[in-house]
Amino acid sequence: YAYLKEYVLPYLVNTSSPRFIGHMTSALPSFNYELTDLVLRLNQNLVKVETSKSLVFLERQAMAMLHHAFYDFPESFYTEYAQQSGNSLGITVSGGSLANISALWVARNLLLPPDDIFPGVAQAGLNAALAHYKYKNIVLLGSRLMHYSMKKAVSLLGLGMENIVYVDQDENGKMDIAALERCIEECRQKQWCILALVGIAGATETGNIDPLEEMAEIAKTFNIHFHVDGAWGGPVVFSNRHKHKLKGIEKADSITLCGHKQLYLPQGISFCLFRQPDMVKAISISAAYQAREGGYDFGQYSPEGSRSSLSMCLHAALHLIGKQGYAKLIDNGIDKAQYLTEQLHKTEAFELMREPELNIVNFRYIPIRFRGKQAQGLLTTEDNLQINEANVQLQEMQFQEGRSFFSRTQLSNTRYGKDLPIEVNRAVLANPLTTYQDIDFVLEDQLTIAAKSIENEYPSTKQEISKLAFSLPKPAEQEALLD
Amino acid sequence: YAYLKEYVLPYLVNTSSPRFIGHMTSALPSFNYELTDLVLRLNQNLVKVETSKSLVFLERQAMAMLHHAFYDFPESFYTEYAQQSGNSLGITVSGGSLANISALWVARNLLLPPDDIFPGVAQAGLNAALAHYKYKNIVLLGSRLMHYSMKKAVSLLGLGMENIVYVDQDENGKMDIAALERCIEECRQKQWCILALVGIAGATETGNIDPLEEMAEIAKTFNIHFHVDGAWGGPVVFSNRHKHKLKGIEKADSITLCGHKQLYLPQGISFCLFRQPDMVKAISISAAYQAREGGYDFGQYSPEGSRSSLSMCLHAALHLIGKQGYAKLIDNGIDKAQYLTEQLHKTEAFELMREPELNIVNFRYIPIRFRGKQAQGLLTTEDNLQINEANVQLQEMQFQEGRSFFSRTQLSNTRYGKDLPIEVNRAVLANPLTTYQDIDFVLEDQLTIAAKSIENEYPSTKQEISKLAFSLPKPAEQEALLD
Repeated sequence: YAYLKEYVLPYLVNTSSPRFIGHMTSALPSFNYELTDLVLRLNQNLVKVETSKSLVFLERQAMAMLHHAFYDFPESFYTEYAQQSGNSLGITVSGGSLANISALWVARNLLLPPDDIFPGVAQAGLNAALAHYKYKNIVLLGSRLMHYSMKKAVSLLGLGMENIVYVDQDENGKMDIAALERCIEECRQKQWCILALVGIAGATETGNIDPLEEMAEIAKTFNIHFHVDGAWGGPVVFSNRHKHKLKGIEKADSITLCGHKQLYLPQGISFCLFRQPDMVKAISISAAYQAREGGYDFGQYSPEGSRSSLSMCLHAALHLIGKQGYAKLIDNGIDKAQYLTEQLHKTEAFELMREPELNIVNFRYIPIRFRGKQAQGLLTTEDNLQINEANVQLQEMQFQEGRSFFSRTQLSNTRYGKDLPIEVNRAVLANPLTTYQDIDFVLEDQLTIAAKSIENEYPSTKQEISKLAFSLPKPAEQEALLD
Repeated sequence: YAYLKEYVLPYLVNTSSPRFIGHMTSALPSFNYELTDLVLRLNQNLVKVETSKSLVFLERQAMAMLHHAFYDFPESFYTEYAQQSGNSLGITVSGGSLANISALWVARNLLLPPDDIFPGVAQAGLNAALAHYKYKNIVLLGSRLMHYSMKKAVSLLGLGMENIVYVDQDENGKMDIAALERCIEECRQKQWCILALVGIAGATETGNIDPLEEMAEIAKTFNIHFHVDGAWGGPVVFSNRHKHKLKGIEKADSITLCGHKQLYLPQGISFCLFRQPDMVKAISISAAYQAREGGYDFGQYSPEGSRSSLSMCLHAALHLIGKQGYAKLIDNGIDKAQYLTEQLHKTEAFELMREPELNIVNFRYIPIRFRGKQAQGLLTTEDNLQINEANVQLQEMQFQEGRSFFSRTQLSNTRYGKDLPIEVNRAVLANPLTTYQDIDFVLEDQLTIAAKSIENEYPSTKQEISKLAFSLPKPAEQEALLD
């Protein structure tokens, strides 16, 4: 411990800090700590019933509750399938990346299944499967805002990253439906089969939601597996105020959800829900000593084998936080994003890239010398490259100074065109401890750092700093956010 | 909690029980509990430096210590690479299955790499890669004792499970080197490329170790990726008494290790070590907002993204348990397996299937009416099928009664031939709390259950029960196992 105290602990990141609003890692409700201790001390292994018994059924029940929140099938469906051996409403994995990989693994095996004379892609391999079904290629459809785990998935699954067909976005970052239809038509003409269509429910970088309803219709028409990546935005379904934004998610064949994001669970637990309880059989693999075929053993339906019983935390959270608690968390996060947006509108120092749909806000600092041109919409590519450089420098300095934090990303679909990547701040408003004052603090901190560094290099603008840097208006009064 | 207490907790499996000697889940050293609590409360995310800072370097250091234990490269190697950005001595994943999958993912991408005119399998996909390199097929070589995650790996990676070429074992369960050479020759004639050769260091079912040294030589000769699955047996390297059994593992291109098995860490952390620090680049995938290319961010080299800082437990264990502690744990486990073996030899009620190499023992109960024939080696296939049935029944009853436990598996390479699967008890002697008396207890418990059930169905043998069922000799005195 002495070693830890001296060399390690002082150099961590305070991910729970209300002023660390750059990443998707937040403060957690305290029941997680007690339960995880129990998880550890019991040391059950969810790979099979023989090493976890009742927890298999507890996890299946929690999965059914999640499934119900999205798909809302009748009670009789859950009575029949929630605990039915050989079927599963979803799988639990260590993170969202594996959930996406698993969904596409299932989709691939369902797309190239066994038939009378062919044993299926899982047995015979991708090469033989494409030959048997007379496809010239296999591709994944989705927008450029897809999570990078989709690249991992297509690399792993043997498609190759070149075989992601990126469908254009409209000016709001949502998938362009006409472009999607053109892509599908093109694939059909080329005899390419489509592994899946990916809809994003809360893009990692921007919080954007694809037009899920229309995408679901198209997927149905062309018989394409429709996967929705709800790793970030999935829990919006709990909010009566905002769930309309996810309309169409109930038509997805599979849905990714992350426990450690907006379900406020510890790291190490995420979910892939499947619309039909027999879909998981497409990736079923068994062994003689465990994960016996057709039984309850989870090990047969997952890229993982041994794993802990962290799903106890999900079960507890669905009861302790519940639908109303999650709704409150989601609503507050979106309100804070609106507040941040309003603050950004009030100053020329920042440029908001796009109105946020959820609780992620993209904006950038505009150095003083560019503010006039920016306001008039006259920034050149050269100007933008210089502003990019300033923003990269600024974000890194803010992280180094350690008082506050936004993360940073690159957007390639902005008002400056599709070919010019723009470096932006990315604010993630998910920590319930973050107040409106904290938001102001992080903005002002960035302005202070900008004044000391970037603007200092341009002495001609120095006089303006004191005027502009601290020009943010204060909110009249802090609302009670956690009532 | 009331719910948990009433409906869940009473129905768990006591995986720490010294009499639960059937699976690979054991009691854990207590420092794990404190550290995991810290891991949870700090809630760092190892996907990138921005959410974990110093822990990235702590994990890299622990990885270097593991790497050194197996590969023993000179100090200068570790000085250069342990903390070198863009390289990595291994990757941390949630379990052994993912470690095996990752190793083969790396192997596939290295086997079908980019060249002047081809972007490589990761970009172009398996179909295009096989066509470019003019291979007719791609296969994995290993024995039937390979872990079932290898099936997951070849399904995921697009090879298909039919494209595992199972190399014959000798009568001790080790890979037959002559058979391996024949397989390789055959593949070359058919223009099949070989994804990897898998050596097993402690088979999940039997504890067997393949002839790693000879396999490494052959892999080198034919330029095949040599992967050693040391999920179970890897830590034997810490024991001076037994490490010679792993000779050749230091020539592996990649090695799988499980934290939650014989490293006595919590569930959720395993490792894939790579001989060369640049091998992980073969699966590198980056994103603009994290896992930035060539940096320290772990997210770029792993099938996973977000994950916790459980590697703090590895770092602590390598210091607190250390080489000597692990050696003691390994030595004691193997001693207990020897003790169990001796006990089995002393009675006709059990048949030992094979002398154990490590701490896993396979044996079966022989119903009284078959003991004569078994002793004389006269069991027919029909007899064996009946004995199988009795053993399945017996193992399930023992699990249900809940006092003690062996797991069960099917062996297909026994003295009864390769085509007759034999159902056997599988004892795993890894829990340091298990004493010689506990071993006797579990054996006697099975005999008691057999007497009540199986033998009862054959009244003619009833008289013999009292004589035979409790015929195990007692050890003179219990040794101090945990001194």
